[in-house]
Amino acid sequence: MILKITLAYEGTRFVGWQKQKSGRSVQGVLEAALQQLTGKPVPVTGAGRTDSGVHAVGQVAHANVRTRLASKEIQKALNAILPEEVLIRSVQIAPARFHARYSAKSKLYRYQIWNDPLRPLFGREQLHHVRDRLDFPAMRRAARALAGRRDFKAFHSSGRPVRSTVRTLQKISLTKEGPRVTLEVRGDGFLYHMVRRIAGLLIEIGKGKRPAIPPTAPAKGLCLLSVRY
Amino acid sequence: MILKITLAYEGTRFVGWQKQKSGRSVQGVLEAALQQLTGKPVPVTGAGRTDSGVHAVGQVAHANVRTRLASKEIQKALNAILPEEVLIRSVQIAPARFHARYSAKSKLYRYQIWNDPLRPLFGREQLHHVRDRLDFPAMRRAARALAGRRDFKAFHSSGRPVRSTVRTLQKISLTKEGPRVTLEVRGDGFLYHMVRRIAGLLIEIGKGKRPAIPPTAPAKGLCLLSVRY
Repeated sequence: MILKITLAYEGTRFVGWQKQKSGRSVQGVLEAALQQLTGKPVPVTGAGRTDSGVHAVGQVAHANVRTRLASKEIQKALNAILPEEVLIRSVQIAPARFHARYSAKSKLYRYQIWNDPLRPLFGREQLHHVRDRLDFPAMRRAARALAGRRDFKAFHSSGRPVRSTVRTLQKISLTKEGPRVTLEVRGDGFLYHMVRRIAGLLIEIGKGKRPAIPPTAPAKGLCLLSVRY
Repeated sequence: MILKITLAYEGTRFVGWQKQKSGRSVQGVLEAALQQLTGKPVPVTGAGRTDSGVHAVGQVAHANVRTRLASKEIQKALNAILPEEVLIRSVQIAPARFHARYSAKSKLYRYQIWNDPLRPLFGREQLHHVRDRLDFPAMRRAARALAGRRDFKAFHSSGRPVRSTVRTLQKISLTKEGPRVTLEVRGDGFLYHMVRRIAGLLIEIGKGKRPAIPPTAPAKGLCLLSVRY
């Protein structure tokens, strides 16, 4: 049967979601845990291939698993096996045609900035520290201007060729609470590094600059919040 | 001159505030940083001797330092030297008679519980995980009954002899936001393990038990929020 697995993780000490030639990946530890549970190799497919250092609150993966265990039991067993930086939030039985990546309608990402002369302490691995004072209203205006369907070519990092660089941002919001500036972006699909480049652009604009090519903001500020199907 | 140093730290990988025969203490790394800055040994005294694993948002320490640097420069230099788990929030010149511990009028501690069948992920080193469903109203009633001046003998861990076990809790509050249960306690002084035993008692009451001796809740949930002078 096809399992839909919703999981959270701290990406700091992972090479990223995807298995690599060397290093510990989230996909790798999840596949190993499923193999330990079922006794057989279980390939897992994720909705979004988060980079090293990128976190997730609601990553979704699917796997074809043969087991007599109930989904609640699978969840409990996986959480007992997995390292403390990974948490299975739910396990559900999905329709046979369910695909974590191709069935996804949209994804919601968050990028968090700590805008203060002092570095952050608690939760610092989820915050990109910007010391310079940022012009928040200017950043917000720039963020709003990115909403909708448009060509995000300038926000695409090379290395992953794509047919089209047109994407739709269904939602983009920028909020501020004390030193914490939070960007949230919902889209039907994202180019490689797109959210980090949007964050990078907004930070430059906040500093009063107008970069020709948006810089890629550090991975640690990024988090995959949820996937809609 | 006497410096009043306000600092935050993550206590996880420290043996506690106080210097020990072996292991890394917060006091130790702060003294080392001040010595690096001034070229001389600088003893430091803290307001509260937090245990290993206990955190601080607003610990206060004093030190007698000879320097020509302005307090803002001292702060900046210390933050550059100190490990990332320690943050100097402010440095001020204090009156000659200022003593971080003896001049303190009250201290505010927080204890955080994560009450959910699933373990916490982000910020898990600042949360004590309790799986069993807790009776929050019962805990709150019990917390309120502890306010005021009374003998906290039952909440005192042996090992540190004291003349009197009478203390005054100026404030005790218990709040709940989703799975997060937060205890805040302000007092003129605390016995050894007192806040952790208050947390331990409330958790037991939340489980429907009435322990004769309040158990000591784990260090990780505890945080010294601020000190009043």
